[in-house]
Amino acid sequence: MPETFDDLDAHLRSTAAKRLDAFLELLRIPSISALSEHAEACQVAAEWIAEALRDAGLEHVEVSPTEGRPVVYADWLHADGAPTVIVYAHYDVQPVDPLELWHKPPFEPVIEGGRLFARGAADDKSHVALLTNTAAAWLGVRGRLPINLRVVFEGEEESGSENLDHWLEANRMRLGADLAVISDNGFFDGNLPAITTGLRGMMYAQLDVIGPSQDLHSGGYGGTIRNPAIVLADIVAQLHSADGRVTVPGFYDDVRPLDDNERAESARLPFDEQAYMAEMGVDALFGETGYTTLERRGARPTLDVNGLWGGFQGEGAKTIIPAHAHAKVSCRLVPDQDPKAIFEALRERVAALTPDGARTEVTLINTGHPSLTPLDHPATVAAARCLEEVFGQAPLFVREGGSIPVTASFASILGLPVTLLGFMNPDCRAHSPNEFVRLDNWEAGHRAMVRYWAALATAGI
Amino acid sequence: MPETFDDLDAHLRSTAAKRLDAFLELLRIPSISALSEHAEACQVAAEWIAEALRDAGLEHVEVSPTEGRPVVYADWLHADGAPTVIVYAHYDVQPVDPLELWHKPPFEPVIEGGRLFARGAADDKSHVALLTNTAAAWLGVRGRLPINLRVVFEGEEESGSENLDHWLEANRMRLGADLAVISDNGFFDGNLPAITTGLRGMMYAQLDVIGPSQDLHSGGYGGTIRNPAIVLADIVAQLHSADGRVTVPGFYDDVRPLDDNERAESARLPFDEQAYMAEMGVDALFGETGYTTLERRGARPTLDVNGLWGGFQGEGAKTIIPAHAHAKVSCRLVPDQDPKAIFEALRERVAALTPDGARTEVTLINTGHPSLTPLDHPATVAAARCLEEVFGQAPLFVREGGSIPVTASFASILGLPVTLLGFMNPDCRAHSPNEFVRLDNWEAGHRAMVRYWAALATAGI
Repeated sequence: MPETFDDLDAHLRSTAAKRLDAFLELLRIPSISALSEHAEACQVAAEWIAEALRDAGLEHVEVSPTEGRPVVYADWLHADGAPTVIVYAHYDVQPVDPLELWHKPPFEPVIEGGRLFARGAADDKSHVALLTNTAAAWLGVRGRLPINLRVVFEGEEESGSENLDHWLEANRMRLGADLAVISDNGFFDGNLPAITTGLRGMMYAQLDVIGPSQDLHSGGYGGTIRNPAIVLADIVAQLHSADGRVTVPGFYDDVRPLDDNERAESARLPFDEQAYMAEMGVDALFGETGYTTLERRGARPTLDVNGLWGGFQGEGAKTIIPAHAHAKVSCRLVPDQDPKAIFEALRERVAALTPDGARTEVTLINTGHPSLTPLDHPATVAAARCLEEVFGQAPLFVREGGSIPVTASFASILGLPVTLLGFMNPDCRAHSPNEFVRLDNWEAGHRAMVRYWAALATAGI
Repeated sequence: MPETFDDLDAHLRSTAAKRLDAFLELLRIPSISALSEHAEACQVAAEWIAEALRDAGLEHVEVSPTEGRPVVYADWLHADGAPTVIVYAHYDVQPVDPLELWHKPPFEPVIEGGRLFARGAADDKSHVALLTNTAAAWLGVRGRLPINLRVVFEGEEESGSENLDHWLEANRMRLGADLAVISDNGFFDGNLPAITTGLRGMMYAQLDVIGPSQDLHSGGYGGTIRNPAIVLADIVAQLHSADGRVTVPGFYDDVRPLDDNERAESARLPFDEQAYMAEMGVDALFGETGYTTLERRGARPTLDVNGLWGGFQGEGAKTIIPAHAHAKVSCRLVPDQDPKAIFEALRERVAALTPDGARTEVTLINTGHPSLTPLDHPATVAAARCLEEVFGQAPLFVREGGSIPVTASFASILGLPVTLLGFMNPDCRAHSPNEFVRLDNWEAGHRAMVRYWAALATAGI
């Protein structure tokens, strides 16, 4: 007979008003990590959350300082024989500008038609509250958790997570676990239940082309020397073939091919190409031949120019040959590409393309590893079952094109398998004005998480 | 028996101190045309020059207003049967920044070792003074000029000459002449007497590549749409072939080939390629194959990127696909290329290179016609003879890579043949701090100009 959660569901129903009030309180704290004048608010938010975790019955609660915003940690480790799971969310939020586009002040939450509007309502305080409430429900109703739990709530996700990495390094010995579950994501277009199984990695570099020692008059010198802006264009143009493939030697060597199962899952995703084009304001899509748009976005690596500059950029005319020209060049990476190896390959390619009469430099700015949880991983299978039970339909499996750097951090620093389970509605306007969370997603998410923890106890992770 | 100029030379010798004092006075007037707070100084300079032209004995002297700085006009039209010559120089000067690099204040002229230091000492008040003094010498000693003379001294050469064009248009009917002589240039490297026979023209445009309606997240969208920065690079890269030729169809169709005589004259020019590279700080030169460096600089057309920009240009990383990218693209042109036709050809080439998923626009910013005076033109032959007589060596014939837009204006608006005769030392630091003129060039230039006017009377122009 399958386990029932009627008691836990009833507890959630009876605490609905109280849970919502507490969530609103948390949303009123303007914990913007990127702005130093909000450092105090981040501290207040961390203390507030620590208190809530204590109230929930968790142990070893601490507001753990870092060089930046604190990490909030708690655990409960009395589920003998059960696996240990780290759950992650972040309590910091994005800045609110442009403020004039908000219909209501971003830190004065309001509810309209089942939507709760506030900065952080979705990203990611919805999950901070949800995870705290899930622990409170289990411990309040049954006096125990089905798994051993470590809570890690970060305060700098929106500004780079640099100090979380240091904190994970420093606390590695005491963070023993079997799995990390990241809750900082959500459903697919149309608010369809979905599990993120993959995230792309990143290699971000700067390309500098250096020519003459100063800007030169294009009349007095034009036709006699290399123009660094043209050299830059020549090099960038030679990083792709006409069919959209990256021509850095070895670039695709370590790319794990899409298997039939993954391609079938990708093909199941509802996707309206015309609407996608209209949203971006373009009349055609483009990318590597041989793959669908969603495959190219989630499961294939890319090379993009994020910016370029050099020479005269003002109105009108200035007749110079610029002394130097620059580009930001970044790659989105997929398993099993190694960001550092890709950087070295790019550097070698650029060196090979550099002509006489100009110098080039390629400098690494940052990297992030790609991640991919197999569709048949027990943690993924368990999550799918819980989502189907609560939301009434089998979830989609999605490889996202973006990166959540902490995902790779849990994998690389703690050596853990990582899975992602979050409930944000996809139209939540994270990072934008009038961010909101659908309260039905949030409520149902509680029930799914209650079940997920139980499922993980016996999933064989 | 050749005409002698002993009387005129003696006059120049006896007036040397007075002429120098007057020149210093003119140099003390800070007539920077580009800065509106110096408009009054430009007016003062124009009035001062008008007074000097009256003192010289010229007629119909006027300070002729324009929308910007005034044109100073004067004439003397009593040389019955002789040709009419317009002489041109400009009284405005470049701004002086960076001021801290000047050893002495730029408008407090000082003489050291035969060099006169001041802003405008060479470019181009040296010629304003020299032409005024030449007229004064002829009229003072012989009571006549050998030619009919129209003096046009401009006040906006350093800021685009836009109003001179309007002034020439408006006064076209009363500016009848046989030749225009521009004095706004000088000698060749090593202070070798030289005649500028050609100037390149100009076509300056902006290339805009427009992609999505806003910057996009490179994770969420990378791999699915055209990146405007890469499209820009692709287009720019396809405007040249690997051998340095411009691949805009028809680009070379109207280029007048270098004839053997011109190539021989060019080969006569002393040119130290190693020193040229060292000056610019590059380890190799580059340009269209099949031509020497000096031919490529002066007699062959080019296409350069003067600047480019788009997307993220700050420190660190921002992971966007830019919504648009831009480049300033300009061509230096040679006879008989037509700037507008070259613009149209570029626009067509860019349109043909524009892929699906991006839009491009090419906007014309400005144009200037190339100019070339044949080596055997009577005005050129006469100038060469006068330079040889005064400086003791046959002059070099130089096609300059730059442009003097007024040259084309005299040709296109007044329909005149144009020749260039100036005496600036090539190391004069025009436009830079510590500008100076070699006073021996300046003095000898007077004697050459005295002879040149006489030579033009009988040259058969």
